[in-house]
Amino acid sequence: MTDAHPVTGLDDVVHQRVRLGILTITHEARRVEFGYLRTQLQLTAGNLSQHLGVLETAGLVEIEKGYEGKRGRTWITLTPAGNAALAEEIGRLKLLIARVEEGFTA
Amino acid sequence: MTDAHPVTGLDDVVHQRVRLGILTITHEARRVEFGYLRTQLQLTAGNLSQHLGVLETAGLVEIEKGYEGKRGRTWITLTPAGNAALAEEIGRLKLLIARVEEGFTA
Repeated sequence: MTDAHPVTGLDDVVHQRVRLGILTITHEARRVEFGYLRTQLQLTAGNLSQHLGVLETAGLVEIEKGYEGKRGRTWITLTPAGNAALAEEIGRLKLLIARVEEGFTA
Repeated sequence: MTDAHPVTGLDDVVHQRVRLGILTITHEARRVEFGYLRTQLQLTAGNLSQHLGVLETAGLVEIEKGYEGKRGRTWITLTPAGNAALAEEIGRLKLLIARVEEGFTA
Protein backbone atom coordinates (compact mmCIF):
# COMPACT_ATOMS: atom_id res chain seq x y z
CA MET A 1 0.00 0.00 0.00
CA THR A 2 1.36 3.36 -0.96
CA ASP A 3 -0.77 5.42 1.41
CA ALA A 4 0.43 3.79 4.62
CA HIS A 5 1.61 6.01 7.45
CA PRO A 6 5.36 6.32 8.23
CA VAL A 7 4.74 4.55 11.55
CA THR A 8 4.15 1.32 9.62
CA GLY A 9 7.83 1.47 8.64
CA LEU A 10 8.95 1.25 12.27
CA ASP A 11 10.34 -2.15 13.20
CA ASP A 12 9.00 -3.60 16.48
CA VAL A 13 12.28 -5.44 17.05
CA VAL A 14 14.00 -2.06 17.38
CA HIS A 15 11.15 0.27 18.39
CA GLN A 16 9.97 -1.67 21.46
CA ARG A 17 10.84 0.51 24.47
CA VAL A 18 13.28 -1.80 26.29
CA ARG A 19 15.05 -2.88 23.10
CA LEU A 20 15.39 0.73 21.94
CA GLY A 21 16.98 1.39 25.34
CA ILE A 22 19.41 -1.52 24.98
CA LEU A 23 20.44 -0.37 21.50
CA THR A 24 20.78 3.27 22.56
CA ILE A 25 22.87 2.57 25.66
CA THR A 26 25.05 0.01 23.90
CA HIS A 27 25.57 2.46 21.06
CA GLU A 28 26.59 5.20 23.51
CA ALA A 29 28.92 2.97 25.50
CA ARG A 30 30.24 0.89 22.53
CA ARG A 31 30.38 -2.17 24.82
CA VAL A 32 28.27 -2.66 27.93
CA GLU A 33 28.08 -5.12 30.76
CA PHE A 34 24.79 -6.90 31.48
CA GLY A 35 24.54 -5.50 35.03
CA TYR A 36 25.01 -1.94 33.78
CA LEU A 37 22.14 -2.35 31.30
CA ARG A 38 19.96 -3.80 34.06
CA THR A 39 20.55 -0.80 36.32
CA GLN A 40 20.10 1.74 33.57
CA LEU A 41 16.90 0.17 32.28
CA GLN A 42 15.59 -0.95 35.69
CA LEU A 43 14.85 -4.48 34.55
CA THR A 44 14.94 -7.93 36.05
CA ALA A 45 17.68 -10.18 34.71
CA GLY A 46 15.08 -12.43 33.09
CA ASN A 47 13.37 -9.60 31.27
CA LEU A 48 16.68 -8.15 30.04
CA SER A 49 17.84 -11.59 28.86
CA GLN A 50 14.66 -12.08 26.92
CA HIS A 51 14.99 -8.79 25.07
CA LEU A 52 18.70 -9.41 24.42
CA GLY A 53 17.72 -12.77 22.93
CA VAL A 54 15.35 -11.06 20.48
CA LEU A 55 18.09 -8.63 19.44
CA GLU A 56 20.70 -11.39 19.15
CA THR A 57 18.38 -13.55 17.03
CA ALA A 58 17.82 -10.56 14.74
CA GLY A 59 21.60 -10.16 14.43
CA LEU A 60 21.62 -6.70 16.03
CA VAL A 61 23.79 -7.41 19.09
CA GLU A 62 26.67 -9.69 19.92
CA ILE A 63 26.79 -11.27 23.36
CA GLU A 64 30.08 -12.46 24.87
CA LYS A 65 30.49 -14.25 28.16
CA GLY A 66 33.73 -13.87 30.08
CA TYR A 67 35.27 -13.17 33.47
CA GLU A 68 36.35 -10.14 35.41
CA GLY A 69 38.55 -11.66 38.10
CA LYS A 70 36.45 -14.57 39.33
CA ARG A 71 33.11 -13.03 38.47
CA GLY A 72 31.24 -14.07 35.37
CA ARG A 73 30.42 -11.17 33.12
CA THR A 74 28.32 -10.79 29.99
CA TRP A 75 29.29 -8.13 27.50
CA ILE A 76 27.05 -6.71 24.79
CA THR A 77 28.11 -4.89 21.63
CA LEU A 78 26.14 -3.72 18.58
CA THR A 79 26.79 -5.45 15.28
CA PRO A 80 27.04 -3.31 12.11
CA ALA A 81 23.43 -4.37 11.41
CA GLY A 82 22.50 -3.18 14.90
CA ASN A 83 24.06 0.21 14.26
CA ALA A 84 22.24 0.45 10.94
CA ALA A 85 18.92 -0.56 12.49
CA LEU A 86 19.27 2.07 15.21
CA ALA A 87 20.12 4.74 12.62
CA GLU A 88 17.07 3.68 10.58
CA GLU A 89 14.78 3.88 13.63
CA ILE A 90 16.12 7.33 14.50
CA GLY A 91 15.53 8.50 10.92
CA ARG A 92 11.93 7.27 10.99
CA LEU A 93 11.27 8.80 14.41
CA LYS A 94 12.49 12.16 13.12
CA LEU A 95 9.99 11.99 10.23
CA LEU A 96 7.24 11.09 12.67
CA ILE A 97 8.20 13.93 15.03
CA ALA A 98 8.22 16.40 12.14
CA ARG A 99 4.66 15.35 11.21
CA VAL A 100 3.41 15.62 14.78
CA GLU A 101 5.04 19.00 15.30
CA GLU A 102 3.44 20.39 12.15
CA GLY A 103 0.14 19.41 13.75
CA PHE A 104 0.92 21.13 17.06
CA THR A 105 1.72 24.47 15.42
CA ALA A 106 -1.00 24.32 12.71
CA MET B 1 16.84 5.63 40.78
CA THR B 2 18.50 8.78 39.59
CA ASP B 3 20.89 7.14 37.14
CA ALA B 4 18.22 5.54 34.97
CA HIS B 5 18.34 6.09 31.23
CA PRO B 6 15.83 8.48 29.57
CA VAL B 7 14.25 5.49 27.80
CA THR B 8 12.82 4.36 31.16
CA GLY B 9 10.66 7.50 31.05
CA LEU B 10 8.92 6.37 27.87
CA ASP B 11 5.39 5.11 28.47
CA ASP B 12 4.54 1.81 26.75
CA VAL B 13 0.90 2.86 26.43
CA VAL B 14 2.01 5.65 24.08
CA HIS B 15 5.34 4.36 22.73
CA GLN B 16 4.09 1.01 21.39
CA ARG B 17 4.33 1.24 17.58
CA VAL B 18 0.65 0.86 16.64
CA ARG B 19 -0.58 3.11 19.45
CA LEU B 20 1.98 5.79 18.57
CA GLY B 21 0.59 5.55 15.03
CA ILE B 22 -3.01 5.93 16.21
CA LEU B 23 -2.13 8.96 18.33
CA THR B 24 -0.06 10.56 15.55
CA ILE B 25 -2.68 10.11 12.82
CA THR B 26 -5.55 11.19 15.06
CA HIS B 27 -3.53 14.22 16.12
CA GLU B 28 -2.89 15.13 12.47
CA ALA B 29 -6.47 14.62 11.38
CA ARG B 30 -8.12 15.94 14.60
CA ARG B 31 -10.90 13.32 14.16
CA VAL B 32 -10.51 10.04 12.28
CA GLU B 33 -12.74 7.24 11.16
CA PHE B 34 -11.90 3.67 12.20
CA GLY B 35 -11.56 2.45 8.59
CA TYR B 36 -9.11 5.24 7.76
CA LEU B 37 -6.90 4.26 10.70
CA ARG B 38 -7.04 0.62 9.60
CA THR B 39 -5.87 1.47 6.09
CA GLN B 40 -3.16 3.85 7.24
CA LEU B 41 -1.80 1.44 9.82
CA GLN B 42 -2.45 -1.75 7.82
CA LEU B 43 -4.15 -3.52 10.71
CA THR B 44 -6.96 -6.00 11.13
CA ALA B 45 -10.11 -4.58 12.73
CA GLY B 46 -9.52 -6.76 15.81
CA ASN B 47 -5.98 -5.58 16.30
CA LEU B 48 -6.92 -1.92 15.88
CA SER B 49 -9.86 -2.31 18.31
CA GLN B 50 -7.59 -3.83 20.90
CA HIS B 51 -5.10 -0.95 20.75
CA LEU B 52 -7.91 1.63 20.76
CA GLY B 53 -9.25 -0.06 23.89
CA VAL B 54 -5.90 0.39 25.64
CA LEU B 55 -5.83 4.08 24.69
CA GLU B 56 -9.47 4.60 25.71
CA THR B 57 -8.91 2.92 29.09
CA ALA B 58 -5.92 5.22 29.63
CA GLY B 59 -8.14 8.21 28.84
CA LEU B 60 -6.10 9.22 25.78
CA VAL B 61 -8.76 8.86 23.07
CA GLU B 62 -12.50 9.26 22.86
CA ILE B 63 -14.46 6.83 20.71
CA GLU B 64 -17.88 7.77 19.28
CA LYS B 65 -20.16 5.49 17.35
CA GLY B 66 -22.55 6.96 14.82
CA TYR B 67 -23.88 6.71 11.29
CA GLU B 68 -22.94 8.06 7.91
CA GLY B 69 -26.12 7.45 5.92
CA LYS B 70 -26.97 3.86 6.81
CA ARG B 71 -23.41 2.79 7.51
CA GLY B 72 -22.18 2.50 11.06
CA ARG B 73 -19.08 4.56 11.67
CA THR B 74 -16.68 4.85 14.57
CA TRP B 75 -14.90 8.15 15.11
CA ILE B 76 -11.79 8.67 17.20
CA THR B 77 -10.52 11.91 18.70
CA LEU B 78 -7.68 12.66 21.12
CA THR B 79 -8.57 13.86 24.60
CA PRO B 80 -6.54 16.70 26.14
CA ALA B 81 -4.67 13.98 28.08
CA GLY B 82 -3.99 12.22 24.77
CA ASN B 83 -2.54 15.38 23.27
CA ALA B 84 -0.38 15.90 26.36
CA ALA B 85 0.81 12.28 26.31
CA LEU B 86 1.79 12.54 22.65
CA ALA B 87 3.67 15.79 23.30
CA GLU B 88 5.46 14.13 26.24
CA GLU B 89 6.46 11.12 24.10
CA ILE B 90 7.77 13.41 21.35
CA GLY B 91 9.80 15.38 23.91
CA ARG B 92 11.37 12.20 25.28
CA LEU B 93 12.11 10.83 21.81
CA LYS B 94 13.92 14.06 20.96
CA LEU B 95 16.16 13.67 24.03
CA LEU B 96 16.85 10.07 23.06
CA ILE B 97 17.64 11.03 19.46
CA ALA B 98 20.02 13.77 20.64
CA ARG B 99 21.91 11.21 22.75
CA VAL B 100 22.13 8.70 19.92
CA GLU B 101 23.26 11.32 17.43
CA GLU B 102 26.05 12.48 19.75
CA GLY B 103 27.25 8.90 19.63
CA PHE B 104 27.15 8.69 15.84
CA THR B 105 29.33 11.77 15.39
CA ALA B 106 31.72 11.14 18.33
